[in-house]
Amino acid sequence: MRVKEIRDRLHEIVFEADTPLGKLFDVVLLVLILFSILIVSLESVSSIREAYGNWFLAIEWALTFLFTLEYFLRIWLVDKPSGYIFSFFGIVDLLSVIPTYLTLFAINTTPLIVFRSLRLIRVFRIFKLWRYLGEGEQMRKALYASRAKITVFITVVLTVALIVGTLMYLIEGPQHGFTSIPRGVYWSIVTMTTVGYGDIAPSTEIGQSLAAFLMILGYGIIAVPTGIVTLEYSRASKPSTQVCKSCSKEGHDEDAKYCKYCGAML
Amino acid sequence: MRVKEIRDRLHEIVFEADTPLGKLFDVVLLVLILFSILIVSLESVSSIREAYGNWFLAIEWALTFLFTLEYFLRIWLVDKPSGYIFSFFGIVDLLSVIPTYLTLFAINTTPLIVFRSLRLIRVFRIFKLWRYLGEGEQMRKALYASRAKITVFITVVLTVALIVGTLMYLIEGPQHGFTSIPRGVYWSIVTMTTVGYGDIAPSTEIGQSLAAFLMILGYGIIAVPTGIVTLEYSRASKPSTQVCKSCSKEGHDEDAKYCKYCGAML
Amino acid sequence: MRVKEIRDRLHEIVFEADTPLGKLFDVVLLVLILFSILIVSLESVSSIREAYGNWFLAIEWALTFLFTLEYFLRIWLVDKPSGYIFSFFGIVDLLSVIPTYLTLFAINTTPLIVFRSLRLIRVFRIFKLWRYLGEGEQMRKALYASRAKITVFITVVLTVALIVGTLMYLIEGPQHGFTSIPRGVYWSIVTMTTVGYGDIAPSTEIGQSLAAFLMILGYGIIAVPTGIVTLEYSRASKPSTQVCKSCSKEGHDEDAKYCKYCGAML
Amino acid sequence: MRVKEIRDRLHEIVFEADTPLGKLFDVVLLVLILFSILIVSLESVSSIREAYGNWFLAIEWALTFLFTLEYFLRIWLVDKPSGYIFSFFGIVDLLSVIPTYLTLFAINTTPLIVFRSLRLIRVFRIFKLWRYLGEGEQMRKALYASRAKITVFITVVLTVALIVGTLMYLIEGPQHGFTSIPRGVYWSIVTMTTVGYGDIAPSTEIGQSLAAFLMILGYGIIAVPTGIVTLEYSRASKPSTQVCKSCSKEGHDEDAKYCKYCGAML
Repeated sequence: MRVKEIRDRLHEIVFEADTPLGKLFDVVLLVLILFSILIVSLESVSSIREAYGNWFLAIEWALTFLFTLEYFLRIWLVDKPSGYIFSFFGIVDLLSVIPTYLTLFAINTTPLIVFRSLRLIRVFRIFKLWRYLGEGEQMRKALYASRAKITVFITVVLTVALIVGTLMYLIEGPQHGFTSIPRGVYWSIVTMTTVGYGDIAPSTEIGQSLAAFLMILGYGIIAVPTGIVTLEYSRASKPSTQVCKSCSKEGHDEDAKYCKYCGAML
Repeated sequence: MRVKEIRDRLHEIVFEADTPLGKLFDVVLLVLILFSILIVSLESVSSIREAYGNWFLAIEWALTFLFTLEYFLRIWLVDKPSGYIFSFFGIVDLLSVIPTYLTLFAINTTPLIVFRSLRLIRVFRIFKLWRYLGEGEQMRKALYASRAKITVFITVVLTVALIVGTLMYLIEGPQHGFTSIPRGVYWSIVTMTTVGYGDIAPSTEIGQSLAAFLMILGYGIIAVPTGIVTLEYSRASKPSTQVCKSCSKEGHDEDAKYCKYCGAML
Repeated sequence: MRVKEIRDRLHEIVFEADTPLGKLFDVVLLVLILFSILIVSLESVSSIREAYGNWFLAIEWALTFLFTLEYFLRIWLVDKPSGYIFSFFGIVDLLSVIPTYLTLFAINTTPLIVFRSLRLIRVFRIFKLWRYLGEGEQMRKALYASRAKITVFITVVLTVALIVGTLMYLIEGPQHGFTSIPRGVYWSIVTMTTVGYGDIAPSTEIGQSLAAFLMILGYGIIAVPTGIVTLEYSRASKPSTQVCKSCSKEGHDEDAKYCKYCGAML
Repeated sequence: MRVKEIRDRLHEIVFEADTPLGKLFDVVLLVLILFSILIVSLESVSSIREAYGNWFLAIEWALTFLFTLEYFLRIWLVDKPSGYIFSFFGIVDLLSVIPTYLTLFAINTTPLIVFRSLRLIRVFRIFKLWRYLGEGEQMRKALYASRAKITVFITVVLTVALIVGTLMYLIEGPQHGFTSIPRGVYWSIVTMTTVGYGDIAPSTEIGQSLAAFLMILGYGIIAVPTGIVTLEYSRASKPSTQVCKSCSKEGHDEDAKYCKYCGAML
């Protein structure tokens, strides 16, 4: 009887965030995740790794132990363990603790960082905060609503990048860095998105003219996603509070007096 | 009688996309086109070409055979062959198969890739999908509606680029990479569109001041296309056609069935 | 009597663009101006200048002769010559022909290009087309209406650039390219406007962190002009056709039934 | 009695800007501050410092004397000196005069510029102008209203930067400039904000593909702040306060005197 009670209370703390303790658990967990990511990041800096290598090892194992504990706790707490284990976050949680154990079997020390980098996928936990943030939901909705537009936009960008990239490969040639068509396409995307590294840049007059044309054209094309997002955003942010009493549908304009779906007064 | 029937059915499959078989034909064709473009792209990478050259040759000829077959099939199927042959897609289809046959007469092996790159123009077939995509049509409309604004915008950009490019040529001179006025104009466009390769960059104090001025000014000017596209986009996506028969008010949403002002059926 | 008639007709052709001949004159003039700019641009390319130097000289003098003729024609045609001479376009027209004559007195051949570049200011004639383009006027209005916002925006950008530029000068120092505070400010503007040449780039960890912070902050700030222009643009493009019969004021909304200034029915 | 009168009048001049003298004081102060910043900036240019070092020293001390005078004047004028001393601008004013006095105790001459750079924080005084600028207030409001959206946006950007930065570190490795995860994250931010220095650029095929993907994805994400600012901006600039007393309709323009729907006075 008592075990069940503890289990229920722990479930509330670990899986929900309505109670103060539940919120505290989530915040502590997120801090630990961010801390473990910081450790992996710092460890990748060779000068820091050489100086504090042992510290990192100790912290790594302590964090892994805590995350493993949390993982088994979660399995124990849910009524259907398989449901959690094969859920998105279940797999993420497992994948984030495995790497450290795998290092026990690794002979060569170089790929250790590769294993440990897997820890990073735990950062997806941050998206669990999403639902508490109405703003995040709104942003997701705006992006989702404009998925068709974005697909068309990306198709246009890639088609233009393919054509211009091939043309630049033919015009500039390997001697100016355009060693192949894929490289030309890479350069086109770098130029159209206005990133412009300059690792590959046109040198001939015709190449520079085409590049200038692509920049101006590209800027026009690139302005499109901003227009899309602004539009969807302004739609998603429109008052959806009013619900028709007759047909229960949402999404009425601010100045609407009658339901646009069933004609009932609002 | 039977031939006519087959021809009619094939016409439906090849030229239309209403039937399941017609849709399948379009999708298969598009996959083959994208595959042929991938082959041309990969062939331009010298290391891949040297390793799998024969494979590319075999695939190239197989695809060319299929596309040639398709070309003659289309000519046979339409009632007025000349109408198809001289249409935009007819010319594109022809130009995309000719290159491979031309390689038979080419003695030098270097320009082969130039011929084969012509295959790329087949990518325009992708735009045939356009009409099935309401979104694409909407985007095209938005761009078309703002063509006058875009012309004015490009004129302003080019005028500013010309003036600043000349000034930079006079200020920085050939010793800092500004070897001529066209090169200065190229640099101005690279800067104003915020691409910023860095292949040419101002070195003198006055040049850097003018560049900083151009960046801020340019950013203001460059904000204009976004404004234009957003505006036209929001207009193109507004359904302003429906008018309420009862109260004559406009501005109803696309999915509205009843007037939101007076409740009458639309 | 006859001279007066010719003068009147010529005035109509040269100064107005209502008649077919007047339009033709304007177009021919613009083509000549663009051609003269092209000549100056090409002449700045040393390889072209060396090959076709004499051709350029001949064309230059021919164009200068035509523009001088046009200048005196204009003075003769207007009733108050001083009005034209001291107008903006009068000064521009004069300044664009003087350089070529000045080359007669130049001993050294190097600065010739400097004189000839003055020809470029004639490009401002293009703005005379402005008034025929309602779009250009609308764009000018949108920019003018948002001048206060743009001033505030530029002040914020410059203040942030000044602070971050100084910080980077202190953090990175001359050994990483930040040789002085003005250079740091130049780098800040290059970064904030997302141009990013890469001629100066942070090398230290703290410097790169501050740069990353500036980029994200800057992006937020930089989004402002787009917002401003979009807003003013959508305002400027609002139907201003309706004029109040009672108080003759414009600028009523599309759905307005009564004048918002005097209350009379529209 | 007389001292009190002078003190009151001076208080009006120094702390307020309603009277002509008060405005003049503010403008003179701002010009002096900008001048002192210009001096510090120019002094950082080594060639200028060596040539005019003594001049800078003299101007520096003159300005410091004036600012010190102003500081004590302000303390004397306010009724509660501690209120001013510990206010934001009180601390800024103090911190901006201290550096020069500190140079008296500095033995080494190198860090002088570090001390003097503190003078820059006085630039914040410019924000005192803010309140006279309705536009600035509007911009601040728009940014403040969208703070939640901006937080979500920055979280998404940083998460994507962290994941892609780690992937690039694993793919490209130290031999191509990606020496650590923090450096990879720095590169990701440089790429996503479309700054693109090119100091670190991907060299492998997989790296360039991932970079191209990040650019297009990033551009979509980056379009979000523009959408946010445009939206909040258009909201902040809407006068939604006025409601018609006669027909209770909202949405009147700022300059409207009569209701545009029913013609009643507002």
